[in-house]
Amino acid sequence: MPKCVLLLSGGLDSATVLAVARDLGFDVYALSVLYGQRHQVEVDAAVRVAAALGATEHRFVSVNLDTLGGSALTDSGLDVPKDRDESAMQDIPITYVPARNTVMLSLALGYAEVVGATDIFVGVNAVDYSGYPDCRPEYIAAFEHLAQLATKAGVEGKRMRIHAPLIALTKVQIIERGLSLGVDYGMTHSCYDPLPNGRACGRCDSCILRKNAFAELGMDDPVLV
Amino acid sequence: MPKCVLLLSGGLDSATVLAVARDLGFDVYALSVLYGQRHQVEVDAAVRVAAALGATEHRFVSVNLDTLGGSALTDSGLDVPKDRDESAMQDIPITYVPARNTVMLSLALGYAEVVGATDIFVGVNAVDYSGYPDCRPEYIAAFEHLAQLATKAGVEGKRMRIHAPLIALTKVQIIERGLSLGVDYGMTHSCYDPLPNGRACGRCDSCILRKNAFAELGMDDPVLV
Repeated sequence: MPKCVLLLSGGLDSATVLAVARDLGFDVYALSVLYGQRHQVEVDAAVRVAAALGATEHRFVSVNLDTLGGSALTDSGLDVPKDRDESAMQDIPITYVPARNTVMLSLALGYAEVVGATDIFVGVNAVDYSGYPDCRPEYIAAFEHLAQLATKAGVEGKRMRIHAPLIALTKVQIIERGLSLGVDYGMTHSCYDPLPNGRACGRCDSCILRKNAFAELGMDDPVLV
Repeated sequence: MPKCVLLLSGGLDSATVLAVARDLGFDVYALSVLYGQRHQVEVDAAVRVAAALGATEHRFVSVNLDTLGGSALTDSGLDVPKDRDESAMQDIPITYVPARNTVMLSLALGYAEVVGATDIFVGVNAVDYSGYPDCRPEYIAAFEHLAQLATKAGVEGKRMRIHAPLIALTKVQIIERGLSLGVDYGMTHSCYDPLPNGRACGRCDSCILRKNAFAELGMDDPVLV
């Protein structure tokens, strides 16, 4: 089976992408990038998801983006917004981590070179996060072009591919796709600001997007039950 | 003065680029990326060079690329080659760090977003390192295109630029350029495998390229004197 590298946060989106990559017949080398997040609970979720959905290997890279500043997700001095309406989430929010997808895809590219993979899967999504420049199809195409020129495999003529299978899906469609592939979303973790007991807050943008999508499907988000 | 972000290793090349950027009139925000190198001596050199050549700010980001493996520079179980002829350095060597330039430029892009810079300087060089795919002009052009699409500034129409002023220069030409701008190469550090006292080994590929270039100019490399 061909190898792929997959960026795995342990959240709803990347868990779905892992199931999609397995369904396409890839051996999945999962990479979790710890970029100054405030919570061990994300690491635990990534480990659970990788094991449950059949990743071949799972590695971690830490990068302290907090030294660059500029985001509530890496700077403990900034507050994560709560209880916002979805319509207020369209601008680039304070939880935006500068160049996050570029840094994570770069690390995935390094891992791909080491294991000999030419396919990289990532759970970026242009529908729910239209305010992020690095979640658009033209951004993914530009990174794919870069990967072709940046690597020995690419220069030798192998086709480097960046797969973003969720990019045009709504959160509802993502959940439907994952459920059809048997993903147990109760083991994922998407919250930006978990409670002291590690549970999802239910009030940050990420929790609200999930909760509303499960509600549209007539379900409760299993991490909030 | 316009701001730029500059990737600063503390080696000969990036010190020269710092002098070039200052000469062009930029306020320089220097970024040193610690990617599992084995030696504090590189950090000390970067700090010296940033101060001596007038960087406005100097930040560090650590990323443990050693967890991905595949390079003698990040894996202490692999030996750094010694006493090689320059003709043997053309293939991709064991000191190659997978996706290193892509990771470093991504971090520079994040820093640029935080400080509001649209120019990034990097000391890549296509002449002495022809075996590295990510040291070629077409690679730099692809990253520049990516930066345009990846950032809020780029999407809003500001022109993102990746400057690689050394890309077509030989090591001799780089040193000549730096000397003309007053760079003291005695405070730089390029060695892949320093001696226990922190001094350059004089025998790794990086030391040999420097030593030979200074010799062509009728000089001794000041770090080996």
